[in-house]
Formats: sequence, structure tokens, C-alpha cells
Amino acid sequence: MASKKKFARETLAVTTKMVLPNDTNTLGNLFGGQLLAWMDEIAAISAHRHSKRVVVTASISNVSFNSPIRHAEIVTLEAKVSRSFTSSMEVVVDVFVEDHVTGFRKKCNEAIYTFVAVDQNGGPIEVPELVPETEEENKRYSGALRRRQLSLILAGKMSPDEATELRALFVKD
Amino acid sequence: MASKKKFARETLAVTTKMVLPNDTNTLGNLFGGQLLAWMDEIAAISAHRHSKRVVVTASISNVSFNSPIRHAEIVTLEAKVSRSFTSSMEVVVDVFVEDHVTGFRKKCNEAIYTFVAVDQNGGPIEVPELVPETEEENKRYSGALRRRQLSLILAGKMSPDEATELRALFVKD
Amino acid sequence: MASKKKFARETLAVTTKMVLPNDTNTLGNLFGGQLLAWMDEIAAISAHRHSKRVVVTASISNVSFNSPIRHAEIVTLEAKVSRSFTSSMEVVVDVFVEDHVTGFRKKCNEAIYTFVAVDQNGGPIEVPELVPETEEENKRYSGALRRRQLSLILAGKMSPDEATELRALFVKD
Amino acid sequence: MASKKKFARETLAVTTKMVLPNDTNTLGNLFGGQLLAWMDEIAAISAHRHSKRVVVTASISNVSFNSPIRHAEIVTLEAKVSRSFTSSMEVVVDVFVEDHVTGFRKKCNEAIYTFVAVDQNGGPIEVPELVPETEEENKRYSGALRRRQLSLILAGKMSPDEATELRALFVKD
Amino acid sequence: MASKKKFARETLAVTTKMVLPNDTNTLGNLFGGQLLAWMDEIAAISAHRHSKRVVVTASISNVSFNSPIRHAEIVTLEAKVSRSFTSSMEVVVDVFVEDHVTGFRKKCNEAIYTFVAVDQNGGPIEVPELVPETEEENKRYSGALRRRQLSLILAGKMSPDEATELRALFVKD
Amino acid sequence: MASKKKFARETLAVTTKMVLPNDTNTLGNLFGGQLLAWMDEIAAISAHRHSKRVVVTASISNVSFNSPIRHAEIVTLEAKVSRSFTSSMEVVVDVFVEDHVTGFRKKCNEAIYTFVAVDQNGGPIEVPELVPETEEENKRYSGALRRRQLSLILAGKMSPDEATELRALFVKD
Repeated sequence: MASKKKFARETLAVTTKMVLPNDTNTLGNLFGGQLLAWMDEIAAISAHRHSKRVVVTASISNVSFNSPIRHAEIVTLEAKVSRSFTSSMEVVVDVFVEDHVTGFRKKCNEAIYTFVAVDQNGGPIEVPELVPETEEENKRYSGALRRRQLSLILAGKMSPDEATELRALFVKD
Repeated sequence: MASKKKFARETLAVTTKMVLPNDTNTLGNLFGGQLLAWMDEIAAISAHRHSKRVVVTASISNVSFNSPIRHAEIVTLEAKVSRSFTSSMEVVVDVFVEDHVTGFRKKCNEAIYTFVAVDQNGGPIEVPELVPETEEENKRYSGALRRRQLSLILAGKMSPDEATELRALFVKD
Repeated sequence: MASKKKFARETLAVTTKMVLPNDTNTLGNLFGGQLLAWMDEIAAISAHRHSKRVVVTASISNVSFNSPIRHAEIVTLEAKVSRSFTSSMEVVVDVFVEDHVTGFRKKCNEAIYTFVAVDQNGGPIEVPELVPETEEENKRYSGALRRRQLSLILAGKMSPDEATELRALFVKD
Repeated sequence: MASKKKFARETLAVTTKMVLPNDTNTLGNLFGGQLLAWMDEIAAISAHRHSKRVVVTASISNVSFNSPIRHAEIVTLEAKVSRSFTSSMEVVVDVFVEDHVTGFRKKCNEAIYTFVAVDQNGGPIEVPELVPETEEENKRYSGALRRRQLSLILAGKMSPDEATELRALFVKD
Repeated sequence: MASKKKFARETLAVTTKMVLPNDTNTLGNLFGGQLLAWMDEIAAISAHRHSKRVVVTASISNVSFNSPIRHAEIVTLEAKVSRSFTSSMEVVVDVFVEDHVTGFRKKCNEAIYTFVAVDQNGGPIEVPELVPETEEENKRYSGALRRRQLSLILAGKMSPDEATELRALFVKD
Repeated sequence: MASKKKFARETLAVTTKMVLPNDTNTLGNLFGGQLLAWMDEIAAISAHRHSKRVVVTASISNVSFNSPIRHAEIVTLEAKVSRSFTSSMEVVVDVFVEDHVTGFRKKCNEAIYTFVAVDQNGGPIEVPELVPETEEENKRYSGALRRRQLSLILAGKMSPDEATELRALFVKD
């Protein structure tokens, strides 16, 4: 049993990259697929820091690509576990681009990955409980449950009636 | 105005890859992030075949990674536009691995990407209407509307009351 | 003994790629060497589909690079086994580029690779017989024998007198 | 007019590489396609040294892959122009692997590439004449003519009767 | 004139990577050259954060590779400007590997790079003054001057007599 | 015991590369970090040729990047062992760029790497003695000792008084 709890801040993983020519389309903007791969890598490192296990990507939720990121731009990705469930962990990745002149960091993407900790045969292993501290960590901690319910309903593994939080969006009892 | 309609089958894009050592984790399985990048690339080509425009990834919906894909395995990705909306297109990607002995193709992943067709300044351009023909194409065509509503609600751009199809999951009127 | 016969169409392998900046020379055209590597990879997958074995490149015949392929262009490669000989297979690869506006596919290259199926020690293993069906498959099937004779003569492993088909090009008996 | 002659030795281009995991198949041997790409690159540099122009791959002749090259092995490629024709150059590439203990270099491959020198619009430009000096350079210089004739016949651009050298293989007049 | 001063902490740049198969030698350890490239990239981002200019690597000082870093290990690189001189900046990079079980970060390398801020023609541009705050930042700030003197002497651009700090190592006046 | 001596010329390793888009910054010049990785690779091959062992990078001395190298330029790197010490070897790498029109090779960089020969457990193994022949080889052979002393002093492993050659720079006894 993995009795040890961990604070969200202990799982923070950061990486900074420069967009190279091969990462860009003919408009000179970063390909979405390249960003998805970068986000997966740093999210996996965050999940590893929480679980100290080999982790495999289980799913990714709705990701939006709002503003284009250009060639030679400096991109910072910050990943933090938002909640853990038995052997899985939800990780939120925030993507920032910094202005070349002012240095101001502008958030331009957010994605949510779920990882499972596995043993050497690929079987799931229990992970520590996640303890949120800041307001944002708490907000993401509750959101994680709602997202998990939605994903279970969409996969046909939970009845809509059991998904109390989600149901409230549609039904005012 | 893009008056021309297109059949779903005209947008099919296929790619076949071999999993190389650098694509794998310590268990010898394909990284989720690498697969996400491959899926994005072939989905973009499918969206390009539909729109004949430069396309950029707008979002990806819930993706699940069910079964691990191993080093040296041959992976086929098939992407097809499932529906178009003004200037955006939903593309469904199916991922198959083939058995090294029997050659039997096993489906092991499915992902849904949305692309926007853009002009040289990055502004959206209208795309042709998509015409589904087969049973599966029709099923994915209707699912696309439901997924779009869910995504608009989650982004706070649509009220749950307007999302009739989704609402039905939770409320038996 | 590998008694099972296979149809040429069962060995078709397709891949679609986009030409990235790193694949191009200063004229902005795809490097020949990069195309050779792509053709080898998809041809190997085709040979694998025929033999269900690990295959290694044995030789490539005369390849011509007729028309340049440009940055960001979408390239489709189609490989199909044209004939099998004991433990080797000849694979023909056709390369197409599609017009960004009309979507018309223009053939711009053709290459012929030979692969050998090998066991875990690298020794040759017998492969199934190849059965051509279409007119083009039949034409390539006969051409394969002529090419094999030429290659054996050039390697000094066959006397020109035995190469009946080739000889006919030069001698009207 | 490119009146200047050049000696074969002035066109020598050498590169030494180590085979990395991503370059190998499941037997741990270098992929043929990777070697083809390496050979094309160094051959292009040799053709550039001869012509001082941008060069593009026009064709490659019969290449045989005789002995497997293994992971971590040190591979040396030597390319030298063997003959020039108006605006094209034939380049021969020799591939050597060195023994990890004795350091003995064993030749394990040979390939023949043809390049065309082009201007900024991709049109052909005249190149200097090639002057062979050593016995091997002279042997390859004459072989180049024979290979060119064979390639023109196979492409249907020369009648077998004009290909005197090749014809002699089949017909004892 | 670049009158604005900057604190050392404002120039911190962090990146976290996983060692992939292609980054390793036959012992399964990270190649020194790959680590050098990673360190250069993150150091350049740090120098960019200080200067808000395009920066180019001018030199690197003595780097030691003390302990091997293994395949699949998680490596964190932290770069910070240690001192600025007119248009150049010295950046110190610390490399840490974290234990897969305890998560303990062990420092395993340190390297010192110098960058120059350049305009679009490659000419040098003045950069802000660097203000150290912590004890370590101050120690590195003074060390930077000593290293600069040594480098100028070795390049024959300063006489040993002017290099007061360095001279003291050898001469007790 | 490794009694066999080797001549410097036996350790020469050469590689020629073309600068690709992904190797360049926004000014279109080769990244310093990429050059460092290329130099390390060819230097390692040179050290391997001397020792016939697996070699690992131990350190690199002061490297200066004097003149920028541009996209599409042809770069030749020549590495040669300059001196060996028990189980370590100093390797000097010279970097040349050739003029696209005249073919004239201009030296634009020089770097000095130290490698250690190791057994399968990573422990050091004795290497052959290096015998310099030419004037330049002799000059670099003596310089190697001076550099080693400097590096030992800077690492706190030698007292400045023992470093006779270096001391002479500062003290006229």
C-alpha cells in the first residue's frame, strides 16, 4: 500500500524549449502534434515524480490550441499532478510563450493528461494520495473528479445518474 | 464561398510506421506523446485533403490509450474527416497494429482531432461540406455534433440547455 | 516449407508524409537520400507483409529522380511485392505528390528494392510464392525476372548466355 | 563554359559515423534505408566539390548490401566522382566498417549515384571534366560510360545497337 | 545604452529531459556531446532572458563529466547568468539527475558558457549589468572575472601581469 | 599492460556534414551546441581508434567560436589524439568550412576534448602511448601537458608550484 501523501507542488516539472524549423508548418507556426508530444513528455515526468514508478499515458482530455506559437519562440511547459485515483494520476500542463522584448510570459495552452503507474509487466500499481494546497490546486483537484466522471460516462463505464457533479450542469433538481 | 461538397472517403489519409527504439519507454512500449504527434500529422493531411488549405490543429477530444504498442511493431494510422463546420473539420484517426505472424490488424486506439482551415494570415476560411456514405461514416457524422456541443459547453460558449443531444444523456424529459 | 501463396494486393503498404524543412536542400526541394530512406522503409513493410519475417535490404536497382518534390508537399509512397524468389522478394515503390489545389496525384518516382527474409541468425528463410492479378502486377512480375538476370550478370554470378530475356534486347537470333 | 578540368582525387569526400539505436532493426543491424541516405549525402558533397554548384540526385544504380553493419559500429564512407558528362557526375561511394579490436577496415558496400549540377531555377549547368589518375580511378572512369549506356537503354533513350560496350557482353561479333 | 540592471534570479532557465536510446553509448550512458548540446541550448535561453537579444555561443570553459547518466534517467538542467561584460554574458549550467526511488536530486555536472548578444548583422550589442544576490551568485560573479582573464591570457589578448586574480594563484607577492 | 605505441596520424578521424535548417538559429547560423555535439562524436571516434576501447568524454577545455557557420555550408571536422596519459587521451578537433565557389577550406574552430577508455563496468583501462611526428603534432603534444596541469590546478588536484610550465607564464624566476 502506498500510504505516503504528496503535495501538488512536489510534482511540478518544468521544461523550456525553442521552436526549431522542423517543428513548424508553412505559416512558420509550431505544429499541434509536436506540442502534444512535448506536453506528454513533461506530464509523464511530473507523474513519475509523484509516483516514483514507470508511468504510461492513459488518456488526454479536451485540449485547445488557442494562439499560434512561432518559429524561434521560447516555450515553457509546466506540469503538475492535479489529483490521484488508486493507480492513475491526472496531470495539468500549462504552456507559456515569452515575449522576446518584454520577457512577459503569456499562457497560450492548457492540456490535461492521465497517466497510470505500472510495474514491469505493465500491471497497475497504487500511487500516493495528492494533497492540493493553493487555491488553483484545489480548483483543479475538484475539476479532476468531474472530468473523470465525464470520461467514464463517455466510455460507458458509469451511468449518468451517478455523475452527480456533471449532472448538475444539465439538471436543476 | 466553398460550395463544393466532398465525400468522407475522399479525405482518407493512411500512414504506416515502424516503432523505433527512440519512440519507446523502458518497458519497450511506444510513448503516448509520439503516437499523439503521428496522429496529428496524418489527421492534418486528411483535413488538408478535404479543404485544400493550410490547416492548424484547433483541439483534440478525449483520447484513450488502451493497449501498449511495442518496439518494432508496424502501426497503421487511418484518418478521415467525420464532419465539417464552416471553417473547421473534425477528423477521426484509427490506429491499428498488425500481428507479426498472422498479419491480423488489431485496432488499438482512436482519437478525434479538430482542425481549422486558415489563410496566409492565419484567419479562418470556409471549407466544403462533408457527405458521409457508409454506416460508420454516418454514425461518426452525428457523434461529431454531440462532441462539438460538449466542447462548447466546457469552454463556456454554449448553455447546457441548447445542447439537446447531450442533455438527453442526463435528463429523461 | 512456405507452401502458402499470396496475392500481390495483400502486400500493399502505403505511407503519407509531409516534407519538412530538414528534408530539403537550399533550393527547397526534398533530398534524394531522404526519399531513398522513406522508400526503403515502406518497401520493407511490404516485404514483411508478404513473408511475415524480419527482412533486410539486399539491393536496389536503377532509381531515377525525375521531378523535384518541394517543402511542405504531401508525398504518398505505395509499395507492393512484384515477385518472390526462394527467400528474396522484389518490391516496387511508386511515389506520388498531390497538387495542393486540385488534389491530383502525380507520380514522380519509382524505385525497385530487393529484400531477403532472414531468421534470428541472419540466415535466409523461404518465402511464399507471389501471385500477380492485375495487368500491371503481371507486367512487373515478368520484369522482375529480367532485372534479376541483369543483376546476376553484373555481379558475375550468371553468364550472359543464360539470361535469355535480356539477351533478346541485344541479339535478334 | 566550364573549361577547368579536375582530378578525381580533388573530389574525395569522407565521413565517419557511429550506428545509433534508431538506425537499427530488431536484429541490431543498420537499416539499408539509413545507409542509402548517408551515402547520398556524402556523394552529394563530392559532386559539389567537383562542380561548385548546387547538385541534385538524378539516379542511383544497382547497390548491393552484402554484409550487415551492427549497432555501435564505426562506419566510414568515401565518395569520389568517377566521371562527368556535360552537367551530370557519377559518384562512387565505398563503405567501410572497422574492426573494434584490430582497427582493420573491411569494405562492406559500394554504391553508384548520379548527380546533376543545377542553377537557382533547377536548370542544368555544365560541370568540369574529370581526370582519373590511379588504376582504380581509370577503371571506374570507363565503367561509368557502360553504366550510363545501360541506364539510357533501360529508360528507352538509347538503342541497344549504339551501346557498343554493353553489347559486347552479349554478342561476340 | 542598456542602462537597466537585472538580478541573476531573473535569468534562471530550467529544462528537464529524459535520456532516450539514441542519446546513449554501448554502456547505456548519455553521450557527452549530447549533454553539451542540451547545456548550450538552455544556457542560450538564460542569456536571452538577460539580454532580450539573439545570442550566439562565444566559448565554453573547462567542463568535467564526473558521473555517467544512464538511459531513461531524468535530467534537469538549470542555467543562470553569472556575470555580464559589455556585450557578453557568462552562464553557469548545473546538471542534476534524480533518483528513481527517492527522488533525491544529485548534481552531476557543471559547465560554463559565454554568449554574445548580437544584432541582425551579427554585430555585438550592449547587455544589461548583472546583479548577484545570493552567496553562490556572488561567488560565481567573482569567479567569472578570473575565468575571463584566464581566457584572455590563453588567447594572447591579455598579459599575465594584468591578470591580478589569476596571478595570485602562482605568485605570493 | 598496453605496451603498443601509436602514431598520431593513425588516430585521425574525419567527418563532413552539411548544416541543415534545424541546426541553425534565427540568423541562419549553426548553433554552438550542435557543433559541440558533432565535435564530441568525431573526437570520440579518434580516441577509439587510438585505444580500441569504449571511450567516454571526461572534459573539454576552452573552446572559442570565432566565425559563424551558415545554413547549407559544408563543414569538415578533423580529430586527432594529441597525447595520452595512462587511461586518458587528449583529442584536438579542427573545424573547417569550405568556400562554395573556390573550395578553399577556412579553419573556423578548434576544440580540445579529453576521453577516458573504460571497460564494461565503466572502470578506466590503460591506453597506448602516443607518438607525435610532425611539427604541429609535437606542438600539441607539449601543449597537452600544460593544459592537463591547468585543469588539475583548477580542479584543486595539483598545487600551482608543481605546474612548472604554467607557472612560467606568471613568474620569471
